[in-house]
Amino acid sequence: MEISQFPQINPPHRLLMGPGPVNADPRVLRAMSYQLLGQYDPAMTHYMNEVMALYRGVFRSQNRWTMLIDGTSRAGIEAILLSAIRPGDKVLVPVFGRFGHLLCEIARRCRADVHTIEVPWGEVFTPDQIEDAIKRVRPRLLLTVQGDTSTTMLQPLAALGDICRRYDVLFYTDATASLGGNTLETDAWQLDAVSAGMQKCLGGPSGTSPVTLSERIVDVIRHRRRVEEGIRTEAHRDGSDEMIYSNYFDLGMIMDYWGPERLNHHTEATSALFSARECARLILQEGLDNGITRHKLHGDALLHGIQAMGLETFGDLKHKMNNVLGVVIPQGINGEQVRKLMLEDFAIEIGTSFGPLHGKIWRIGTMGYNARKDCVMTTLSALESVLNYLKFPTTQGAAMQAAWDHYCAMDRH
Amino acid sequence: MEISQFPQINPPHRLLMGPGPVNADPRVLRAMSYQLLGQYDPAMTHYMNEVMALYRGVFRSQNRWTMLIDGTSRAGIEAILLSAIRPGDKVLVPVFGRFGHLLCEIARRCRADVHTIEVPWGEVFTPDQIEDAIKRVRPRLLLTVQGDTSTTMLQPLAALGDICRRYDVLFYTDATASLGGNTLETDAWQLDAVSAGMQKCLGGPSGTSPVTLSERIVDVIRHRRRVEEGIRTEAHRDGSDEMIYSNYFDLGMIMDYWGPERLNHHTEATSALFSARECARLILQEGLDNGITRHKLHGDALLHGIQAMGLETFGDLKHKMNNVLGVVIPQGINGEQVRKLMLEDFAIEIGTSFGPLHGKIWRIGTMGYNARKDCVMTTLSALESVLNYLKFPTTQGAAMQAAWDHYCAMDRH
Repeated sequence: MEISQFPQINPPHRLLMGPGPVNADPRVLRAMSYQLLGQYDPAMTHYMNEVMALYRGVFRSQNRWTMLIDGTSRAGIEAILLSAIRPGDKVLVPVFGRFGHLLCEIARRCRADVHTIEVPWGEVFTPDQIEDAIKRVRPRLLLTVQGDTSTTMLQPLAALGDICRRYDVLFYTDATASLGGNTLETDAWQLDAVSAGMQKCLGGPSGTSPVTLSERIVDVIRHRRRVEEGIRTEAHRDGSDEMIYSNYFDLGMIMDYWGPERLNHHTEATSALFSARECARLILQEGLDNGITRHKLHGDALLHGIQAMGLETFGDLKHKMNNVLGVVIPQGINGEQVRKLMLEDFAIEIGTSFGPLHGKIWRIGTMGYNARKDCVMTTLSALESVLNYLKFPTTQGAAMQAAWDHYCAMDRH
Repeated sequence: MEISQFPQINPPHRLLMGPGPVNADPRVLRAMSYQLLGQYDPAMTHYMNEVMALYRGVFRSQNRWTMLIDGTSRAGIEAILLSAIRPGDKVLVPVFGRFGHLLCEIARRCRADVHTIEVPWGEVFTPDQIEDAIKRVRPRLLLTVQGDTSTTMLQPLAALGDICRRYDVLFYTDATASLGGNTLETDAWQLDAVSAGMQKCLGGPSGTSPVTLSERIVDVIRHRRRVEEGIRTEAHRDGSDEMIYSNYFDLGMIMDYWGPERLNHHTEATSALFSARECARLILQEGLDNGITRHKLHGDALLHGIQAMGLETFGDLKHKMNNVLGVVIPQGINGEQVRKLMLEDFAIEIGTSFGPLHGKIWRIGTMGYNARKDCVMTTLSALESVLNYLKFPTTQGAAMQAAWDHYCAMDRH
């Protein structure tokens, strides 16, 4: 290996308009370039406490245990599932896309007894459908996805908390793709656990996963407590319940690290924490609701533009996430060729899809730092150019006009 | 919560001379501030391939499967242990400090049958001691720590590969604290798996963990293969062995993501990958052996200075890691008061210790970007000032002169 073949990093410019990751806010990238701190430096633990407070704001929760898991969004999911599910526990997963399957997959690795209900991709569940399944299955946990980017659908969650309390079910949602761009009310909706990711509406790089835990689920986790040898003292007592089958994802240990005892566990990923702090700070500075409105504004402008281009959209638009749109690849058009031309000639990335939708839809995101008018207009214009180049006919100017009209109409509100 | 109480990030200046994290190389911090790429962008997958090649150089290995685990160093440990250990498998852990206990702890969470041998903290094992234990226990895996910062000891590993082959044992080492600052020869020593962390000798922020896997251990992992629903196709076959009880740490899936199939798993932590790439690039640019020599030079200069200050060191100096020194806290001196004065008045962090050594030794690191003459001289000078201030007598100028003498002597070589 010749080291001179590896120059300084220099990624090409890209406008990331897929289902995420999207471009990070430059202020977030800058926050990551600050020098490190020791993990027990008072300045560091102060930043950790600030991150807890800021994410309570983002999750709309008073939960004491609101913190970061050092890994990508599925690390947050797995930490919650491994810590809450004991082998043999019954869980219910309403599956409406690929990430519902992921919850099943992770729950099976936790040796749960996994039960599912399914709707066709492009739809969501009614509360009644979920309540019926809960009555039938009697699960210990309900595992939901709030926004499944594979189908672009947003599962309504507001009514599910009451149902879960009625049947004594712990209520979790994976808000990786939805948080910050769609309403999520952790406390008002009586969620027991929520996990998120940075690279979607939160506007940062993937690599750390914010989670929040209700007292109810913390109690379950505390009953599985084990403190590792080497740092264990005589004052530490084991919990009465079965241990958690992971050290890295043991939320009890992670709480002890974020809490006043500051028991050594992992070495907090300082740069990722700095980035997560800046993401939350920028979101709350804008106002969480203002940010959600912004996601809806630009998501709708994209939708109107795409429709006026003569393209069909995917799924039930009443339940579409604000931040991503499924666009049906028209007959006679090679979807991958379009993505390649978009990337190579316009430096714009749009997404493909998974499983049953693979090769059938593109997914276009408007989220985080890229939930902006210029991103929407640039993407629509480039996509129309590429489609025209490939002989797909559109009405000249109609798509752009529809987007402009939407912006004007919203401006008058 | 009033968002104006959360200003832009502005960590205080610190010189981090503890057992890690240490200050990151500014070029590494800069690499993290680059804009993101989509995870299947050819520019991104090219960087992933480059990272594999660069870490082959750092690990001194031809192993194809050399990649990053998205989490801190213990994520790398846990990914290897969870993927290689089946419930009930016998493992042998030679424990010579806190991080040996951590391997036991993680192995127990994998439901291994854990056997240990121990030496007092401050010592290491002879190959014979380990061979005897292997003969007695007949483990499937030998789990070792190369450098245990809790005791500052470096376990010699060169002779263990042959022993492991002889008894058909898989050979793993945790090189979190040692890699880059001490010799590690993955292939020559016949290691089957090694994991590392960024925040020690590699000079980056914690948050991603480089690992390398031999063909022998890859074969074990491949027999446990499962591909998740939602991206599984008819061409995918399950392995014949028991599944891995984690999705996030399933090295089979992680290989499929880093390999030519690029099967979707997590969303690679792009900024962490950029930082890891820059760390390896800088190490190989300096020359891995030159970097190790540099760690030894500055580690020894610190040692000579500390001894000339009239302080005792901890543990068997023949087996000390190059990059960290245990210093016995002298009678009548409050160790925490010294650390506080160092931090508050000199902005220098030195470390405390764990378990039986808590309150008994300080740990002073010279590693990564901080394996530098100015760091050593500044730290010695500040420590002497603080000790004098607290009425601990030293011979004026002796510590600094001893360090200078060592640098001069080495310069003449």
